Amino acid sequence: MPRAEHPLHRLFYPRSVAIIGASRNPRKFGHIQVANLLRMGYEGRIYPINPRADEISGLRCYPSVLEVPGEIDVAIVTIPAPKVPPVVEECAEKGVRFVVVISSGFREAGPEGERLQEAMLKAVEGTETRIVGPNTTGILNPEARFTTTFMPIEGPVREGPVSFVVQTGLFAGILLIHILTAEHFGIAKVAGLGNKCDLDEVEVLEYLGQDERTRVIAMYIEGVKNGRELMRVAKEVGLDKPIVVLKSGRTEAGTRAALSHTGSVVGRDEVFDAACRQCGMIRARDFEELIDLAKAFAMQPPPRGPRLGVASYSGAGCVLASDECTLQGLELA
Amino acid sequence: MPRAEHPLHRLFYPRSVAIIGASRNPRKFGHIQVANLLRMGYEGRIYPINPRADEISGLRCYPSVLEVPGEIDVAIVTIPAPKVPPVVEECAEKGVRFVVVISSGFREAGPEGERLQEAMLKAVEGTETRIVGPNTTGILNPEARFTTTFMPIEGPVREGPVSFVVQTGLFAGILLIHILTAEHFGIAKVAGLGNKCDLDEVEVLEYLGQDERTRVIAMYIEGVKNGRELMRVAKEVGLDKPIVVLKSGRTEAGTRAALSHTGSVVGRDEVFDAACRQCGMIRARDFEELIDLAKAFAMQPPPRGPRLGVASYSGAGCVLASDECTLQGLELA
Repeated sequence: MPRAEHPLHRLFYPRSVAIIGASRNPRKFGHIQVANLLRMGYEGRIYPINPRADEISGLRCYPSVLEVPGEIDVAIVTIPAPKVPPVVEECAEKGVRFVVVISSGFREAGPEGERLQEAMLKAVEGTETRIVGPNTTGILNPEARFTTTFMPIEGPVREGPVSFVVQTGLFAGILLIHILTAEHFGIAKVAGLGNKCDLDEVEVLEYLGQDERTRVIAMYIEGVKNGRELMRVAKEVGLDKPIVVLKSGRTEAGTRAALSHTGSVVGRDEVFDAACRQCGMIRARDFEELIDLAKAFAMQPPPRGPRLGVASYSGAGCVLASDECTLQGLELA
Repeated sequence: MPRAEHPLHRLFYPRSVAIIGASRNPRKFGHIQVANLLRMGYEGRIYPINPRADEISGLRCYPSVLEVPGEIDVAIVTIPAPKVPPVVEECAEKGVRFVVVISSGFREAGPEGERLQEAMLKAVEGTETRIVGPNTTGILNPEARFTTTFMPIEGPVREGPVSFVVQTGLFAGILLIHILTAEHFGIAKVAGLGNKCDLDEVEVLEYLGQDERTRVIAMYIEGVKNGRELMRVAKEVGLDKPIVVLKSGRTEAGTRAALSHTGSVVGRDEVFDAACRQCGMIRARDFEELIDLAKAFAMQPPPRGPRLGVASYSGAGCVLASDECTLQGLELA
């Protein structure tokens, strides 16, 4: 009996994508998103949505998702925040499975944004439609040649074992470009969750746990809504796949910054630290360490013991590495 | 009354250089050293020393320093360790001021090497001749267009405010190439001291304290011979110029590695740490931090207080930077 399709499967492997806010202006996000799908060789259907255009990049345009003839697995939304709630309502009416809201100006932007975020959530209440974001570059799945990012993707995206579950656009943005051009590991999935008004890291972590392409999971978290669930799932997924976590908002100043970035409310850092130790998540200190740890797990199996050798073209490199090994609890063979 | 010339002045501003081990083979260190001086535009006299050649790179060759007609401020020695002591003796006889011994195979290599190191020291005993090294790439002074390194220097070396006093060849080697091609600060002086059988970091630190070109001092140390003197000089020099120190050999394994790198005997790390705090030296954790701190001091004046703002193209960057500021005792304005 074939395994039932995971509820998030079509977010990463959509058969059809609508781009709400598609544009003929090559500098607009809604243009780049269409161009990225074409350049990456996405094989599903692409529906640009724009009431003032007949055709964008050679694709037929529709005035709204309601006019699209077929089903829509993912709708990407890039229009200004105040216009988002009615459009999300149309998506729910159409039965769109996932609405990836790229637009910012929601909870992170103050009371009016918070009201808009609530209105957007209300629009999908009681429906099957899920919201990703808002305030995120969203999804990347090189295997499906699919992305929602508005960063121009020039070449093919290297596939590999590392998946990212993150609360910032960086990972499907500038940092992705760095990883693709300067790092030696490939990417399985990226899920940028932004404000996490609906879809959260627990669900995505659970999905990646059963995703055969994912061997290593790297997370960047500003706020956790359901810590107990996160621990339960991390404990289970972590048995098979290393989970590296960078948690920000560790201090009062960071907490204030997180509030204006993704509107996240941040818990006490000691508590998160203890939770990581209990459920086996590996904590990274900064972005570099997050990437380095993910890379290490991607490129070599965990050693069987604490003993190792050190090689360097420089004597000073050997001395410093020997020090660091000892300080990290390793032994020189 | 003009200030008396510092005893180390001619090590960094030599009027004449002999290269003992100069070679016509472009892959040999003794060839590259001559080529570097020519390419950098060194304006003093260059004397290649090689008993089996008449001319190297268009320069007249001498069979030994004793045959050189003029005075020699610096002799660079790259010949195999067993041949070094008699050559150093000739240098002392000739009155060479500084012998920079690039060759390795001395104290760091075991008992026989230690014997050679002692023999070399004995050769200069009671003379004015000082030994730099052995086991180092030695000196770089872009202002004088002078270097003893065997790493090919391709272009001009950017001058700037940072001086390095180090116990590894890296700083006049691979790391130098990185600094020159990828970093935004320039270099005042580099003194690679290697095994420090004679010239040590205390004397160089004292020299750099009065060197007008040097505004920031970065040190890499494996072993300290005279801690009390180092503290005394650092306290004084540090009043005017920030001193950043990376000290390795912090652990037992690192100590063993240091013994085989520069033959240094390493003291207890807590003691060094306390000494740094007492005399105001700023301790770096690794090479990156050493370079980063030196760069920070080179490129902006110390702030007047702990308050600062954070700017980043990425929200996550602001959150992480806010956290780090707080953890480092800074305040967001």
